[in-house]
Amino acid sequence: MNRRIPDSTVRRISHYLRALEVMGVQGTPTVSSEELAQQGGTTAAQVRKDLSHFGSFGKRGLGYSVPELASRLRDILGLTCRWRVVLVGAGRIGSALFEYPHFARRGYDCVAVLDNDPEKIGMSWGPVRIRPVEELELVVDALKVDIAILAVPAEAAQTLAERAVAAGARAILNFAAVQLRVPAHVHVAYVNLVVELEALSFAITQNGKGRRK
Amino acid sequence: MNRRIPDSTVRRISHYLRALEVMGVQGTPTVSSEELAQQGGTTAAQVRKDLSHFGSFGKRGLGYSVPELASRLRDILGLTCRWRVVLVGAGRIGSALFEYPHFARRGYDCVAVLDNDPEKIGMSWGPVRIRPVEELELVVDALKVDIAILAVPAEAAQTLAERAVAAGARAILNFAAVQLRVPAHVHVAYVNLVVELEALSFAITQNGKGRRK
Repeated sequence: MNRRIPDSTVRRISHYLRALEVMGVQGTPTVSSEELAQQGGTTAAQVRKDLSHFGSFGKRGLGYSVPELASRLRDILGLTCRWRVVLVGAGRIGSALFEYPHFARRGYDCVAVLDNDPEKIGMSWGPVRIRPVEELELVVDALKVDIAILAVPAEAAQTLAERAVAAGARAILNFAAVQLRVPAHVHVAYVNLVVELEALSFAITQNGKGRRK
Repeated sequence: MNRRIPDSTVRRISHYLRALEVMGVQGTPTVSSEELAQQGGTTAAQVRKDLSHFGSFGKRGLGYSVPELASRLRDILGLTCRWRVVLVGAGRIGSALFEYPHFARRGYDCVAVLDNDPEKIGMSWGPVRIRPVEELELVVDALKVDIAILAVPAEAAQTLAERAVAAGARAILNFAAVQLRVPAHVHVAYVNLVVELEALSFAITQNGKGRRK
C-alpha cells in the first residue's frame, strides 16, 4: 500500500497516460519529461517527481519509451483488468455517463443500472435492464461490483453509499453534492459541478475584477 | 489577489457553505468547527485553518453564527452576483448540465448554448436557442460572458478555449479529457470522469486487493 502518493499525482499520471496514448497512435517512439509536462499542463520537474513515486523510468538524455511508459502507467492505475461498476441513478447525469464512450474503452464495465422511478425500472439501456434500487445489495454482491457510481440527489447519497459498501463495493464515484462518510478502506472520488463552478467564481472574484460590466 | 489559497481550501469552503445552508433552512443558529468538519468530511483544525485565510470568524466557545458565516462564505466564493455562462456543446453532458437545477439557483446563468451539429442548431432549450459554434466570439463579447463551459470532444477543446479567452472569458469549466493551455489570468476547472475513475482503480489496486473475485 502506498498511502503517501498525493491525489494530485495520481490525477497527473492519468493525464500523462492519455498524452502517451495519443503519441503511441501517432507512432512517436520516445518522449522527454518536458514534452510530457507540456501535455499534462505541468513542469518537467513535476513529471519526474510524479513518476519517481513508482520506481525508475526512462534513460537520462534519451527520455522515456512511449509504449513502455504507457504500459507501466496502465499497470499503476489498475487499467490492466476490467472493473465492474454499478450505476445508481438513471437520470440525465446517469444516462450521459452510461453512454460515455471512454467508460468501457478504459476498462470500466457498467454491469447494472438502478433507479427508484417506476417508469424507468424495467427499461433497457443497451444490454442492461434498469432495476429497482432495492436490489443494490443483491447486484453488488452477485455481480461482484467494485465501484458504485452515485448519480442521485444529495439526500439519498449517504444511505446508498453505506448500502453499497456493506455489500462489498470498494470505491464510490459520487456525483451528489454532499461529502460521504465511509470506512477508511473505501475510496471516494467526487464530481461536483457546483464546487468546480464556485472555484472559478472565487478565482475571478479574488482577482479583484468581479463579473464583466 | 490571494494566490496562495490552495484549491483544496476553496473546495472545502464550498462544502462548508452547503452544510451551513442546510443548517440555515433547519433554523440552527450556531455551529462549531467540529460540526462543520463532520459535514465537510474533514477535521475541526482544518475548518479553522481554511477559514483563517479569509479573516476571523466566530467566537471562542460560541462557535460560528450560521447565517453570518454563510453570508461571508458566499461573498468569498463570489456568489453575491450572477455569473454569465456560455455552454459549448449541446450533447448529453451539455444537456444534463443545462438542466442541472443547482446551476441557476447558485447564480450561474447559462446565457447561450453553442453546437456545431446542424440538427441541433436552432433548437430551443427553454428560453435559449442553440447557436452555431462560429458565434462563440460574438456571444462571449456581446453577452459579456464570464465563464465558458466546454462539453466537447477532447480534440476540439484547446481551440475553443483560446477563442473564448480571446473574446473575453475569464474562466473555463472543461469537461473534455485534455489539459488546456491558457494565459495565467484565466482560471480552468476540470471535470474529468476518466481521471476520477482511474484515481479509484489506482486506490483499489494499490491496496493490493485488485478487483473482486
